[in-house]
Amino acid sequence: MHSSNSPDSSEETSMKYFGCAWYPEAWPRERWAEDIRLMKEAGINAVRMGEFNWGRFEPQEGKFEFSDYRHLLEKLHENGIAVLLCTPTAAPPKWMSSRYPEILKSDKTGQPVYDGNRRHCCPSSLKFREFSRRITEKMAETFRDSPAIFAWQLDNEIAAEAEHGFCFCDGCAKRFRTHLEMKYRTVENLNAAWNGAFWSGDFTSFDEIDPRNFKRVSWKAEYAQFMSSLYTELAYEQRDILRQVNPSWKITTNSWTSFLPDVAPDEIYPGLDFASCDTYLGNDSLEFSHSFWDYYRNIRGKRQAFTVGETGAWNPVTTQKDAYQVLRTWAWDAFAHGAENLFYFRWRQSLMGEESHPSILPWSGNPGEAYGIISRTIREIRAFSGQHPGLPPPESNVAILTDRLTGFITKYRDDYSYFHAVVRMNQALNETGVHADILPLSLITEHTLSAYKLVILPQIEHLPDAVCRFLHEYRRNGGKILAQCRLNRMDEFGKYRMESAPANLQKLFGLHIDESCNICKGVDFREFEYNERTLPENNRSLDVEFMGKQARLLSFMEKPIPDTCRILQEYTAGLYQGAPLFTEHDGAFYLAAPMNREGLALVMRHLLKQCGIPRFHVPPKCQRIQRGTILFYINNTADTAVFEDDGIELPPYECLRKEIRER
Amino acid sequence: MHSSNSPDSSEETSMKYFGCAWYPEAWPRERWAEDIRLMKEAGINAVRMGEFNWGRFEPQEGKFEFSDYRHLLEKLHENGIAVLLCTPTAAPPKWMSSRYPEILKSDKTGQPVYDGNRRHCCPSSLKFREFSRRITEKMAETFRDSPAIFAWQLDNEIAAEAEHGFCFCDGCAKRFRTHLEMKYRTVENLNAAWNGAFWSGDFTSFDEIDPRNFKRVSWKAEYAQFMSSLYTELAYEQRDILRQVNPSWKITTNSWTSFLPDVAPDEIYPGLDFASCDTYLGNDSLEFSHSFWDYYRNIRGKRQAFTVGETGAWNPVTTQKDAYQVLRTWAWDAFAHGAENLFYFRWRQSLMGEESHPSILPWSGNPGEAYGIISRTIREIRAFSGQHPGLPPPESNVAILTDRLTGFITKYRDDYSYFHAVVRMNQALNETGVHADILPLSLITEHTLSAYKLVILPQIEHLPDAVCRFLHEYRRNGGKILAQCRLNRMDEFGKYRMESAPANLQKLFGLHIDESCNICKGVDFREFEYNERTLPENNRSLDVEFMGKQARLLSFMEKPIPDTCRILQEYTAGLYQGAPLFTEHDGAFYLAAPMNREGLALVMRHLLKQCGIPRFHVPPKCQRIQRGTILFYINNTADTAVFEDDGIELPPYECLRKEIRER
Amino acid sequence: MHSSNSPDSSEETSMKYFGCAWYPEAWPRERWAEDIRLMKEAGINAVRMGEFNWGRFEPQEGKFEFSDYRHLLEKLHENGIAVLLCTPTAAPPKWMSSRYPEILKSDKTGQPVYDGNRRHCCPSSLKFREFSRRITEKMAETFRDSPAIFAWQLDNEIAAEAEHGFCFCDGCAKRFRTHLEMKYRTVENLNAAWNGAFWSGDFTSFDEIDPRNFKRVSWKAEYAQFMSSLYTELAYEQRDILRQVNPSWKITTNSWTSFLPDVAPDEIYPGLDFASCDTYLGNDSLEFSHSFWDYYRNIRGKRQAFTVGETGAWNPVTTQKDAYQVLRTWAWDAFAHGAENLFYFRWRQSLMGEESHPSILPWSGNPGEAYGIISRTIREIRAFSGQHPGLPPPESNVAILTDRLTGFITKYRDDYSYFHAVVRMNQALNETGVHADILPLSLITEHTLSAYKLVILPQIEHLPDAVCRFLHEYRRNGGKILAQCRLNRMDEFGKYRMESAPANLQKLFGLHIDESCNICKGVDFREFEYNERTLPENNRSLDVEFMGKQARLLSFMEKPIPDTCRILQEYTAGLYQGAPLFTEHDGAFYLAAPMNREGLALVMRHLLKQCGIPRFHVPPKCQRIQRGTILFYINNTADTAVFEDDGIELPPYECLRKEIRER
Repeated sequence: MHSSNSPDSSEETSMKYFGCAWYPEAWPRERWAEDIRLMKEAGINAVRMGEFNWGRFEPQEGKFEFSDYRHLLEKLHENGIAVLLCTPTAAPPKWMSSRYPEILKSDKTGQPVYDGNRRHCCPSSLKFREFSRRITEKMAETFRDSPAIFAWQLDNEIAAEAEHGFCFCDGCAKRFRTHLEMKYRTVENLNAAWNGAFWSGDFTSFDEIDPRNFKRVSWKAEYAQFMSSLYTELAYEQRDILRQVNPSWKITTNSWTSFLPDVAPDEIYPGLDFASCDTYLGNDSLEFSHSFWDYYRNIRGKRQAFTVGETGAWNPVTTQKDAYQVLRTWAWDAFAHGAENLFYFRWRQSLMGEESHPSILPWSGNPGEAYGIISRTIREIRAFSGQHPGLPPPESNVAILTDRLTGFITKYRDDYSYFHAVVRMNQALNETGVHADILPLSLITEHTLSAYKLVILPQIEHLPDAVCRFLHEYRRNGGKILAQCRLNRMDEFGKYRMESAPANLQKLFGLHIDESCNICKGVDFREFEYNERTLPENNRSLDVEFMGKQARLLSFMEKPIPDTCRILQEYTAGLYQGAPLFTEHDGAFYLAAPMNREGLALVMRHLLKQCGIPRFHVPPKCQRIQRGTILFYINNTADTAVFEDDGIELPPYECLRKEIRER
Repeated sequence: MHSSNSPDSSEETSMKYFGCAWYPEAWPRERWAEDIRLMKEAGINAVRMGEFNWGRFEPQEGKFEFSDYRHLLEKLHENGIAVLLCTPTAAPPKWMSSRYPEILKSDKTGQPVYDGNRRHCCPSSLKFREFSRRITEKMAETFRDSPAIFAWQLDNEIAAEAEHGFCFCDGCAKRFRTHLEMKYRTVENLNAAWNGAFWSGDFTSFDEIDPRNFKRVSWKAEYAQFMSSLYTELAYEQRDILRQVNPSWKITTNSWTSFLPDVAPDEIYPGLDFASCDTYLGNDSLEFSHSFWDYYRNIRGKRQAFTVGETGAWNPVTTQKDAYQVLRTWAWDAFAHGAENLFYFRWRQSLMGEESHPSILPWSGNPGEAYGIISRTIREIRAFSGQHPGLPPPESNVAILTDRLTGFITKYRDDYSYFHAVVRMNQALNETGVHADILPLSLITEHTLSAYKLVILPQIEHLPDAVCRFLHEYRRNGGKILAQCRLNRMDEFGKYRMESAPANLQKLFGLHIDESCNICKGVDFREFEYNERTLPENNRSLDVEFMGKQARLLSFMEKPIPDTCRILQEYTAGLYQGAPLFTEHDGAFYLAAPMNREGLALVMRHLLKQCGIPRFHVPPKCQRIQRGTILFYINNTADTAVFEDDGIELPPYECLRKEIRER
Repeated sequence: MHSSNSPDSSEETSMKYFGCAWYPEAWPRERWAEDIRLMKEAGINAVRMGEFNWGRFEPQEGKFEFSDYRHLLEKLHENGIAVLLCTPTAAPPKWMSSRYPEILKSDKTGQPVYDGNRRHCCPSSLKFREFSRRITEKMAETFRDSPAIFAWQLDNEIAAEAEHGFCFCDGCAKRFRTHLEMKYRTVENLNAAWNGAFWSGDFTSFDEIDPRNFKRVSWKAEYAQFMSSLYTELAYEQRDILRQVNPSWKITTNSWTSFLPDVAPDEIYPGLDFASCDTYLGNDSLEFSHSFWDYYRNIRGKRQAFTVGETGAWNPVTTQKDAYQVLRTWAWDAFAHGAENLFYFRWRQSLMGEESHPSILPWSGNPGEAYGIISRTIREIRAFSGQHPGLPPPESNVAILTDRLTGFITKYRDDYSYFHAVVRMNQALNETGVHADILPLSLITEHTLSAYKLVILPQIEHLPDAVCRFLHEYRRNGGKILAQCRLNRMDEFGKYRMESAPANLQKLFGLHIDESCNICKGVDFREFEYNERTLPENNRSLDVEFMGKQARLLSFMEKPIPDTCRILQEYTAGLYQGAPLFTEHDGAFYLAAPMNREGLALVMRHLLKQCGIPRFHVPPKCQRIQRGTILFYINNTADTAVFEDDGIELPPYECLRKEIRER
């Protein structure tokens, strides 16, 4: 099972592992065999193990104890269950922080964070790093030849800021200063990049820089980026140990549900073997998950099947009788988007500590409805997957670009949610049956864009010069571009540019922009952009005519000054009435404001027609997506879904597969 | 007046003392006589004094000064006003914390709390304990023979967490570790009880335990329980000093308005002579207060009249012309529920510090409307009480059990409000004219339950084995039981059990339960369960048919698997449609979900009929309650109230008393 | 330009300077000439400079560098642009806090505040004070003879609490204790004044006083008042240095938008040469700004033209096509209220740090709509102003008194917003075309009130004895008085008085008051009083009949007991039904509750008639205001405004000027 099943072998990328997180250490030893039996019976062929077990692996400093896991891996292997083994560094044992309090993160006041649950260790602590390397080495040596292991997961949901905030200890601050010195070389360069002159903010020495005191958005973003790298370094340290011991091991980690976990996915995954993203079921966030998968499928700089590292084994929508079925369509949906492994969190409900997490088995250990529906789902998808081996991940001729710097900046700017802007754009495509590849800017090369007919740039506030060149080249070769406001108005330090926007791209779009304004004031843009239902009247949007219909502008608008572009639509109301809202210059389209769903649908209708990409009617929250030769129709709702253009009526919570000749 | 009026003398338990809190130290000495005259004129025959006067009792360390209070007690006694004298340890003088900063509580960061108002002292500080004992000794000796004192109050609204959070100083942490060592004996036992294995949470030594770092709900609950005991110990230290000086003194303390003050009432009151609960008037919390009184009436392990230690002397509902009258019905209501003393807070409005507290006299000291209505109320109730001496507290044949562990756990779990579940259940009874005894589990003995026809267990998550035995025995003797979901699903450490629920009681109810789910998500259950008005549409409840009518399920539901029980009602909607919602097995009823008021009314209608307990129509917020031979009808509203079954029309804010032959 | 244009020269008080804040240090040196050219072209004839430039003025400790500014001042002067030069102490350079961390403010836990942006220095730090003096000296000497300077601004938006909270370092605490000792002389006096007896709050020594621990409202207010004085002292230290170097310099500072910046305007401005208040455009706060200007026009103890130190160069209401016009009417509005200078914040949008502040030029530096509308506005107002030189500030025969102690107390009491009560009252006047002088109590003399026909006391909780005497004298001379509830119920220490209210004024009003109550409970009075739209039903107000119509009482009411007064209106509902609500005793009117806009309009109609002051119909948010011989009609709305009594129809966002003979 071991090497032939490695996730990289491109011939067999259909669904491989259905698994779950299992914490045998927290349950009676007598129960283990029964758990394995029940897993096997359910069709579960993988478990994720070990990520919270450092305390039992190393019960005292330097004393290691792996016999239980050695036994478990054997038993699992005998029963055809593969293991995704984890380094346990997310939850170091209590003795470690008691004996070496210096390993704890510090908050801004110098106070150590609590060590009661997870992620409390300082990433720059030499002592912690030493412990991290040693436990990794011991595990690697112990399980060097275990045939049960199909891959390794480094740590668990590696995060720099999420659980306790960033570490602000002297050690981290010192490493940060060294990083800045290496990056900027002189303090004068740093002052220039950081706009130090304002508010007497010039530094006279790198020693004066204290990340705890940062109040400017871009300075915070720089620290966040530094922290992402520091954690990536820590993970790679573990990766290298594992690779040295057994070069054939496949290695990943798992990112928590977000486009921008504080350890940047486009930074960490290119150095690992495959991507794993935790994606929890929740109806409100369905559109978010679809886009998220479209992103992780491309996160290593090439299209590749991905793993859903964690998903809930339960359905939060309980007021519907048939709501169990959501678990089924959710799994089909992930598979259709390119998942090749899917891990439920967790096998059995925790007795204390994380007791509210929905699990396959309840506290009592007796199988119930979740166990039943998951078993059925596994059987179904494995059967289908067996009949269709080697399905490639979905392909697309539309790309949406995303930018890490814009992500960090908007996070600290307390402004609109940049990644919701991405989702909104992809959702507008999905509702026409089109699925985009979502590509991180940092991995774009001169060859990337040529694969697409349409490239979308949703509110990307900074574009590196190289990407601007690629866009010009792509455009010259006939590709279409859609950009949405705020384009490349910042430099690489997060400062606004002292020139008209979009920098380097004015000729491409045939316009330039000096002025912009917020449509609403005193609004939490974040919530607003994602959920129009929370809008109060008349304050947070501007209704305009758009391409012959009605649309609503949200939160912000720019006033483009046309140079050579054609105006497709003017603002018909508001401060910029009469100015261009939607323009085209020779295949390069510019949309000057965020828009509601209806507005974006009109934009897409126009664009896709121009690109010659066929459109299909897809009901809300449903999916029409092609993977290889299979066309999936998925109904994630409690109502019958009618795919009008395909003449298909799909019952609630169903998934229909249609084999097609041509892709 | 002294010994004959002691609250324990069972022959004369009708209303004894109407009093108020008086702070003569904060007012000009010249005013004292006038205050006493006005009190006497109003019929006030008791004052609560001294609880905030440590600063004047001991103006410098070791220098004591009681002459003012000695004088005041004499004058009060001459005027027929008894004194509830308080130890002043709630508000230590400023010189104490200035000279001995170690007496201050520490917060989680090691920072001392501010000493500007109250409750800032560490309960484990040996220095503070020494001061506490000495002031108590000095007061006891000084007032040893004062005939004015009718009882003592220890401290004031003793609280462990409420005003400054728990103390987390090294001394408290050390005592906690000793407590754990004595309780669990080995760290292995503790790890097993505390589910240490998850998240690498095993301790290798008791020394590693640091309550400041607790993040798991049950660990926090253990610290809270420890703190409750520590404060009880501190209070008992004072009690013992007082008893040694004058064994005839009656001693109490006063709990702030809650079922679960952080110093547990069922822990502290059994060792005192009578219970005193602070209960403020407020229309929204009327149901809460009724249940609260039903609880304090039973808090010492036997039915006993109680004291309302503080109540507001003002009416918050000021948009109604006749709103003053609320003060009258409120006092009648307390009396009908078993109050024998009632203390208004406070005599005269504070000039600075607590100036917003409604008082009998305004700042100017001139009597106004509050003085007038309170005088009238006192005259009325005293006259009635004189004609009916020795009225026992209300009796009941229905008991509602409550559990301290469930209370602590749900408090830290940030889940539903357990005590609101209790109130909701009692309210459903009250609306049929039935009043329950609310009994703390910790005081249940093998003889307790036999006095009842119906015992209700509302969402009690842990039941000790002994109580399970008592329930079986009670059932065998013909008593009926109603349990509501979540029953006994946790062990005594707050961990979920590794077996089907309800543990030890499956045979009694003829069913077992493995699965449950939340009906809503992302909801603050606390607010929600108490106030359905804040419900958004379709997200937080599930409408079902119930016993031929409609009811709404709230927040949570279980899926019982019937073994021998009879299904009275299935779920007619939602995830568990078709599964049992309401069952009976031989007099033991199980309700698998929290329900709205209408639903619980249907449950009670069914139950009371089965038990042969008569039901009466009672309008909302009104009361029909019997105390001894008197049946009280109380209208707490601004509208005429019609008690249909009794043929009584009661004007707004009125109380009717009817003498009846049989109880 | 220099001395002849000084703001004190009373002959030419029409609009003098239109300016903007300019931060040349943060922009390329090559751009400076272009910026000056564009300013000049726009008619800008002043810039505010230097307030955030300490870092470039003193790049290393003791090394000063003014050549850039010397050059800039020359260039500006050559171009007819005057300079409001600022001491740069709001934003000390980074090297200072790095080298001398003791200059940083401490929070309550002893933690230094972050030094990343502004206002982080301790006002009592001797080191910081030394630096502050030295940079002021150096700047004064450097620019001693610069003809470009028309005035100095001390620091920037001096604030004690606003950005980082008060400083609570040992040094500040020590100075505070000295202050208390000098004020109260003995700790017994302090205990009496501070009501120490309650809660054992007596101090036995001044050394025990720790402002970090204050929980009582009045104690906090005392610290706030102390801090206001400390910052005033710091500012005056700079003022004295400047005056010594060049006695002809005019000196001001700028207050942020509030009646009660934490450095009290009525404390600091009497010692400066003219007042400058920052007032940002925002439709919701239009009424607030009008009252604010009426206050700053009188803040130095005499009527004087004022400066708008900062105002936004952008319009937040962007959903209206003609919304740019708001900038024009806003400037006219300020001018009509007595502004003689107006500074836009800021010249060009910041690249990083304060990037969201609306500016005249966008990031790109290219003039757009804001530049255009501001240029037009400047041209217009300067032309008009040139034809009407020497217009005095608006005069009034109505005064509204305000009290600093009430302001501080209500701020910490977390009660109603006292200053919104002032605005509400003034707004009721404005809507009849009457404009009040808003006068700080601290500056009232025996001669002040005689200039008025009507004096209004809105919820002033403390009145010094002298002011009571002035009021009696004023009344004897025939002046009318309107007082609104809560009048003089506190003593000078913020304690409630032990006598009936209004102290010292019972005879004047012919009534006395003992009782009062809140109409609503659990309400944030602050928001509520200002915005009735957030009212839930039936909880936060009381509808009554009033003077033949309907009015709504808000949040609070008193029950006056009439002695000699005439009752104009009784309460017609609520707890006090039948008691007096609005009374008169011989020209002294008392209104016993806060009221909504409709109610206050009825009060004003009655009052103005009694005073013989003519009333005019003014549409909402519009103004009818006279300055000298010019009557301004201003329409701040997007609709046509009809001034019915004047027969004037004013288009949206327009200002009409009418010359009139008699004032």
